[in-house]
Amino acid sequence: MALYDTLFSQLDVTSSQHLVTDSDFRSVSFRKQLSETVQSLLALKVIPIFNENDAVSTRRAPYQDSSGIFWDNDSLAGLLALELQADLLVLLSDVDGLYSGPPSDPNSKLIHTYIKEKHQGEITFGDKSRLGRGGMTAKVNAALCAVFAGIPVVITSGYATDNIIKVLQGKRIGTLFHQDAHLWTSVKEVGAREMAVAARDCSRRLQALHSEDRRKILLDIADALEANESLIKVENEADVAAAQDAGYETSLISRLALKPGKIAGLAKSIRVLADMEEPIGRVLKRTELADGLILEKTSCPLGVLLIVFESRPDALVQIASLAIRSGNGLLLKGGKEAKRSNAILHKVITSAIPNNIGDKLIGLVASREDIPDLLKLDDVIDLVIPRGSNKLVSQIKNSTKIPVLGHADGICHVYVDKSAKADMAKQIVLDAKIDYPAACNAMETLLVHKDLSNNGLLNELIVELRHEGVILYGGPRASSLLNIPEVHSFHHEYNSMAFTIEIVDDVQAAIEHIHQHGSSHTDCIVTENHEVAEIFLNRVDSAAVFHNASTRFCDGARFGLGAEVGISTSRIHARGPVGVEGLLTTRWILRGSGQVVDGDKGVIYSHKDLPLQLQL
Amino acid sequence: MALYDTLFSQLDVTSSQHLVTDSDFRSVSFRKQLSETVQSLLALKVIPIFNENDAVSTRRAPYQDSSGIFWDNDSLAGLLALELQADLLVLLSDVDGLYSGPPSDPNSKLIHTYIKEKHQGEITFGDKSRLGRGGMTAKVNAALCAVFAGIPVVITSGYATDNIIKVLQGKRIGTLFHQDAHLWTSVKEVGAREMAVAARDCSRRLQALHSEDRRKILLDIADALEANESLIKVENEADVAAAQDAGYETSLISRLALKPGKIAGLAKSIRVLADMEEPIGRVLKRTELADGLILEKTSCPLGVLLIVFESRPDALVQIASLAIRSGNGLLLKGGKEAKRSNAILHKVITSAIPNNIGDKLIGLVASREDIPDLLKLDDVIDLVIPRGSNKLVSQIKNSTKIPVLGHADGICHVYVDKSAKADMAKQIVLDAKIDYPAACNAMETLLVHKDLSNNGLLNELIVELRHEGVILYGGPRASSLLNIPEVHSFHHEYNSMAFTIEIVDDVQAAIEHIHQHGSSHTDCIVTENHEVAEIFLNRVDSAAVFHNASTRFCDGARFGLGAEVGISTSRIHARGPVGVEGLLTTRWILRGSGQVVDGDKGVIYSHKDLPLQLQL
Repeated sequence: MALYDTLFSQLDVTSSQHLVTDSDFRSVSFRKQLSETVQSLLALKVIPIFNENDAVSTRRAPYQDSSGIFWDNDSLAGLLALELQADLLVLLSDVDGLYSGPPSDPNSKLIHTYIKEKHQGEITFGDKSRLGRGGMTAKVNAALCAVFAGIPVVITSGYATDNIIKVLQGKRIGTLFHQDAHLWTSVKEVGAREMAVAARDCSRRLQALHSEDRRKILLDIADALEANESLIKVENEADVAAAQDAGYETSLISRLALKPGKIAGLAKSIRVLADMEEPIGRVLKRTELADGLILEKTSCPLGVLLIVFESRPDALVQIASLAIRSGNGLLLKGGKEAKRSNAILHKVITSAIPNNIGDKLIGLVASREDIPDLLKLDDVIDLVIPRGSNKLVSQIKNSTKIPVLGHADGICHVYVDKSAKADMAKQIVLDAKIDYPAACNAMETLLVHKDLSNNGLLNELIVELRHEGVILYGGPRASSLLNIPEVHSFHHEYNSMAFTIEIVDDVQAAIEHIHQHGSSHTDCIVTENHEVAEIFLNRVDSAAVFHNASTRFCDGARFGLGAEVGISTSRIHARGPVGVEGLLTTRWILRGSGQVVDGDKGVIYSHKDLPLQLQL
Repeated sequence: MALYDTLFSQLDVTSSQHLVTDSDFRSVSFRKQLSETVQSLLALKVIPIFNENDAVSTRRAPYQDSSGIFWDNDSLAGLLALELQADLLVLLSDVDGLYSGPPSDPNSKLIHTYIKEKHQGEITFGDKSRLGRGGMTAKVNAALCAVFAGIPVVITSGYATDNIIKVLQGKRIGTLFHQDAHLWTSVKEVGAREMAVAARDCSRRLQALHSEDRRKILLDIADALEANESLIKVENEADVAAAQDAGYETSLISRLALKPGKIAGLAKSIRVLADMEEPIGRVLKRTELADGLILEKTSCPLGVLLIVFESRPDALVQIASLAIRSGNGLLLKGGKEAKRSNAILHKVITSAIPNNIGDKLIGLVASREDIPDLLKLDDVIDLVIPRGSNKLVSQIKNSTKIPVLGHADGICHVYVDKSAKADMAKQIVLDAKIDYPAACNAMETLLVHKDLSNNGLLNELIVELRHEGVILYGGPRASSLLNIPEVHSFHHEYNSMAFTIEIVDDVQAAIEHIHQHGSSHTDCIVTENHEVAEIFLNRVDSAAVFHNASTRFCDGARFGLGAEVGISTSRIHARGPVGVEGLLTTRWILRGSGQVVDGDKGVIYSHKDLPLQLQL
């Protein structure tokens, strides 16, 4: 109390001590006067400070005895909040609020809004605070008591000087208890986590199935798609009509529409996927560590994938079938313009998933606003795959701790060496740009060996490109040589019938240009000189490096991977086009007969490679 | 001006307009009076607002003509700052500050402190702002002009209402220009980036070497270590003596000391690594996509690794040799107690790296304060591997966007099934706990089938464990059955001669317990029932799952991977003990003869798997 008094005095605030005992509260007149006293003090701007009157308390073992109306400072605070009909009760702790487990446990998360229905039973409490009685259990009990009477409570840290002010300003700190909490916030947050956890649980059951049963699910989905074709078409046409009414671009509408034969094509590709070699549980490596101690490295699913994709509803079918093939749970968020198509496709697919797995294996996320909540779930979601604009990918990368597979940009180069064949160079450059200018594997920068500006090939190329309607921008050398506008940055993705051209001295300069300005997606050299080609293939540090072939080949289907979930420019996990393999991780399985390490005295290591196929 | 006046009036602030022309500044008396006027206005709390007197300006083409003393609002601001000897010049823009490239380019980074030596020439400017003349180039020129005269400048966004206040509070927003900037901040930041970029450049040269030349570097390092053994010992003994003086724990000092024969052992393990099969450029998959179009998936280095490790100096040697073997650049930060040992080992190793590669391939980070700067370099550093306490790993994971390989905690379980052999169960449980209690692969939780509490095995186990000095804590069932203290959380890593024990109903309950409370590191079943064993091996979703073998086997050396950089519990990229393989990624190499995609009409896809070894 002396400390409170000293500190408040420095702020010219008067405080007053009130020592109470449990038995005081049994008196109705005490309770009435208590309220009046506090009101009067507050009117005089005096801060009342309550504490148990330990000296006269009749509690036998004050630190254990929790009988009575209050039994520690937390329950006293809860009681006073009730008696005084407080507007808010703030409980200060030595941690930032209520955690889902012991705060020292790195897996514990701060609970921002306590919802009884959700959190009761889920929370494990750690050691009691070393300061005073109580601990978090006592604070939560006091909070629940006050909340029951309609008083909101915030538990927050007392170690930050301005936390009380922040709470009063309504900042999102500490843990809030409110009698209506279950009605607001939670619906979304709980929903996102529940969805992800359900997908994980279903995926674990899916993994436990026999290969043949997993295959059957895919075949059933293919059949279901065909059986529901007319239903799917109706919904898709509704989306297309709505998009037309809304005045969307033709290119978007074209991607949105499921063309005739599309459903049959999708069903066919699912059947191809069903017939591929079982990807789960494959033995990738088998080693005898010691006599009778056999180690296997096996493939297994990643867990739960979150895929955010734009417009094309057929992507939903491809991704869902890849997820099932690889044994993963899946959360899908499609574009709002394909809402009805996605809903029906999701319904048709999940209705073909047997009950013993559960249709929550594949969750369809309804609105864009749910994504931020999903991106927080780095303990349940294992990989995020954004398929869409650079902006979407960058935004997602910047707002999650979950690994993101994909590429923010595709600045692909074609380098035409001095020994290139003129016709081949023209065909590859044209194809790389105009086959599909908006694709991520389309050429954005053309590098040309300096000698080609003399021998006419450069001019031929430019004439041909302009004939096709391509607009050229130049680097410093090319813009002055060709009298074309100069680019502001070589790191530029046009996604349209335009590209940057620059003159380079040789293959080394081309490689350096690509390393400095590229995005490590796909880069190509056109040359007849095999030595130069090998230098380029070995040195260019990109996901895909091509010799005498169009950059447009960088694609899961063209690479023979079956469907693809995306193209990764990340160097970790999977790189380039990603199919089923990129959705798997590995487990080490060791089978022994009682071996122990015992300071490595117990075992004679042989480390013998064994064949992957067990001899039967 | 009317807008300024209206807005300032609402705050009861008076403003005054001053229209000036370029020629005014040519008059010495104008300049003198200008200062006096502004001083007087400020003394009266009137805010002067300057603008060019366009109506009387003699500039011919005001939007292009940059002759004269000032030529736009930015240069006017710079000029006024000089004339008035301002304490600070704040330039408001429509972006957050100066970026390393066009702000719309996702690779551009906001520059917090502009350092002429570092940033000049490095920055590419985007389009001019659409609002008014100038753009960022004009702002930077004005800033450099003011800075040259000793006036600090901040460029920040004018779109956030409180940015000016934040700048005045010294918050780290926008881009700061200061004449001493190159002396402070930068040394560290520039240093960190330069170090990482140098390591990447060296690693690219290392990759380009022939396999035999890379092998020779490792052999040279092994020789150099042996040749410098006495020098290394002197430095190591100095570290050990300092640690003893500082009163460090015996266990730390024991890890710090290089024991006799250690250098020879390290040299030997480097030679083993040198003799392993070349890991770089291995063909992992070869496919004929179409006639004459051959696709290869090859292994290649990740790029640059940052490894933060504690105490053991021999880890430096292991990690450096793994990095060289895998063709990666490396940044190392060791524990401060091993400072002298690390410095000499780093010197000996880098002096064996040939000049055509560069000794910056392996950088030694001097102080802990440099780590936050390194962790920001997600565009240059590809993987961070923390080797140390849970706290270190968690801190690093929470403060970087670079992928982190490792594990925050190792809560390993042994489940003793009802059909376990008593002796084997005892040996495995004992070894899993006491062989090295502080290891991440040591057992932290023992799960026991409920039937074993009746048949005596549980009691035998407990007697034996207590005999070895192990302290037991129980889950709800075990604590009441065995009368031992109850744990607060099953997610607890003791790292000491203690563990948690709990009774479970069967293998299913054991698996659920592990999924709910484990850390997916290493989990083991002891059973004679092979059906039960296979259920456990298939369902437990951890990096390593063992049958009848101690959890302590989960280790790179015991797994036969050679040295290990760490054990990963992440599901992405590498899982479990990580050796050379986990430090590699892949590239797709496509060799063609002019093929183009042309709407997939140009090529007949064969997708034929080819043998990995080319037939010669």
